[in-house]
Amino acid sequence: MTAPTPADPDRQRQRQIEDELLRTVLASFENTPDARLREVMQGLVGHLHAFIREVRLTEAEWQQAIDFLTATGHRTTDRRQEFVLLSDVLGASTQTINVNHEATAGATEATVVGPFFVEGSPEIALGGDMAAGAPGEPCWVEGTVTDTEGNPVSGARLDVWEADEDGLYDVQRDGDQLAGRAHLHTDDQGGYAFWGLTPTPYPIPHDGPVGELLDKTARSPLRASHLHFKATAPGLRTLVTHIFVEGDDLLGSDAVFGVKESLIKRFERQPVGTPTPDGRDLSGRSWSRVRFDIRLAPQRA
Amino acid sequence: MTAPTPADPDRQRQRQIEDELLRTVLASFENTPDARLREVMQGLVGHLHAFIREVRLTEAEWQQAIDFLTATGHRTTDRRQEFVLLSDVLGASTQTINVNHEATAGATEATVVGPFFVEGSPEIALGGDMAAGAPGEPCWVEGTVTDTEGNPVSGARLDVWEADEDGLYDVQRDGDQLAGRAHLHTDDQGGYAFWGLTPTPYPIPHDGPVGELLDKTARSPLRASHLHFKATAPGLRTLVTHIFVEGDDLLGSDAVFGVKESLIKRFERQPVGTPTPDGRDLSGRSWSRVRFDIRLAPQRA
Repeated sequence: MTAPTPADPDRQRQRQIEDELLRTVLASFENTPDARLREVMQGLVGHLHAFIREVRLTEAEWQQAIDFLTATGHRTTDRRQEFVLLSDVLGASTQTINVNHEATAGATEATVVGPFFVEGSPEIALGGDMAAGAPGEPCWVEGTVTDTEGNPVSGARLDVWEADEDGLYDVQRDGDQLAGRAHLHTDDQGGYAFWGLTPTPYPIPHDGPVGELLDKTARSPLRASHLHFKATAPGLRTLVTHIFVEGDDLLGSDAVFGVKESLIKRFERQPVGTPTPDGRDLSGRSWSRVRFDIRLAPQRA
Repeated sequence: MTAPTPADPDRQRQRQIEDELLRTVLASFENTPDARLREVMQGLVGHLHAFIREVRLTEAEWQQAIDFLTATGHRTTDRRQEFVLLSDVLGASTQTINVNHEATAGATEATVVGPFFVEGSPEIALGGDMAAGAPGEPCWVEGTVTDTEGNPVSGARLDVWEADEDGLYDVQRDGDQLAGRAHLHTDDQGGYAFWGLTPTPYPIPHDGPVGELLDKTARSPLRASHLHFKATAPGLRTLVTHIFVEGDDLLGSDAVFGVKESLIKRFERQPVGTPTPDGRDLSGRSWSRVRFDIRLAPQRA
């Protein structure tokens, strides 16, 4: 009573059954009052069904998926967003950024915001120190903000934030101390400069279901070393991006796929005793310097 | 400073950026030790990215999706599986069933299991009553179990379960009383018969995030009236299915997409006083009868 491979008419019938179901589900969303919600739901259904059919998802795997989503939901709290981590490690966050910040010739590329931006950072003067006591090697960061035609943008606002050398952002530490984050404004020539920290790598939180997924797929939870920027100026598109460290071993395996070739910058190591650009006394510590020229795209119509 | 539509080189570059990210994410799963997990994850990533790119998902919509999944996770408990409901209303559960119970010429079609099957139902004799006091109109159900060549299958096990006329399964009521569920075995000619209830419609639980989604998409939470079957016999493929009620208004809008044309059966209404097949005294109540002949496919190699 054991059948060999299914006969051709059975295959055709099977395909028909699967197609019919898909059509029925798509049709069930046809009366959605909001046209955009209809479009998104029908797009989701189309790809969800294509996925199930393509991999021939087993019932046991479906159950595993339900269990995984349940565990991810139960791990998520006000302070821990496991679904954002999931989106990050699947590249969905970065692809969403890509789709919403379309390439414009000559403009600096965007990348993921990440969960550590907070409103209300302290303002610093040009040449000021955004580390504010956060541990790490000092890094002099300088550059200009222009439009895509190279015209300087004066008074552009730059928000900058980064993890310290322990791999922690200020908001991951106890207490309310802001450190490793600030904002400043460009000068009349569109120039800016500040002291930050030489970026160091750190893992995304990986003691939950998403960490297990990374384990099972032999992937690292480490992010490539980076420094966050958000640039805002009237009449120009707001840019959220990072700069990465040339030579970092993790550039090819960033856990959240934030790296873009054009955002990799040379951080020049300065031996102990090298004079600093602004005469700051670093008390015998080494430091680094990097240049990042930002070109903002015009606003979309 | 307002740009018109993006120039062609920008479009090409944009496409390249999106393609490159997809390739990088797919490559990140390349070292997954389990080949099947690799296949499933790469399939998932491919379709997830295709969805985001196709609908040009906005950052606000991405955030709504994160919030929706979070609410769905928080609504899920030991007694309420909101992710299964989500899978159901997107047709993903039924498509998974389709994929795992491929069409076989002459075999009865499968449909969703649903969340209300439980092990350990009481055994009843042929002609016995599976309602066991659950409220509703009595329904005489009879038929045969055969293989796809029409040979009778004696001793096949049939599990049957259904909601009562209040729209509730026994497990949705307080207490441990089993009602509206039983199992029985076919006779020497593959025949079976039992008393159940004429199926009536009921809503899936819709006071959570999935219910909100149904609201926003103008969909009904109601399931078409049905009676569940699970048929098991040595050497044949186990079948899990329903039968639906011919003429039911909800056949075209079943909330979980369980309806298949071949599973719609005529339930013949019997006026009060019509003699019953086994002489049962229904004390002046109306009843119905239905025939369901089950054909089980051979086991797959």
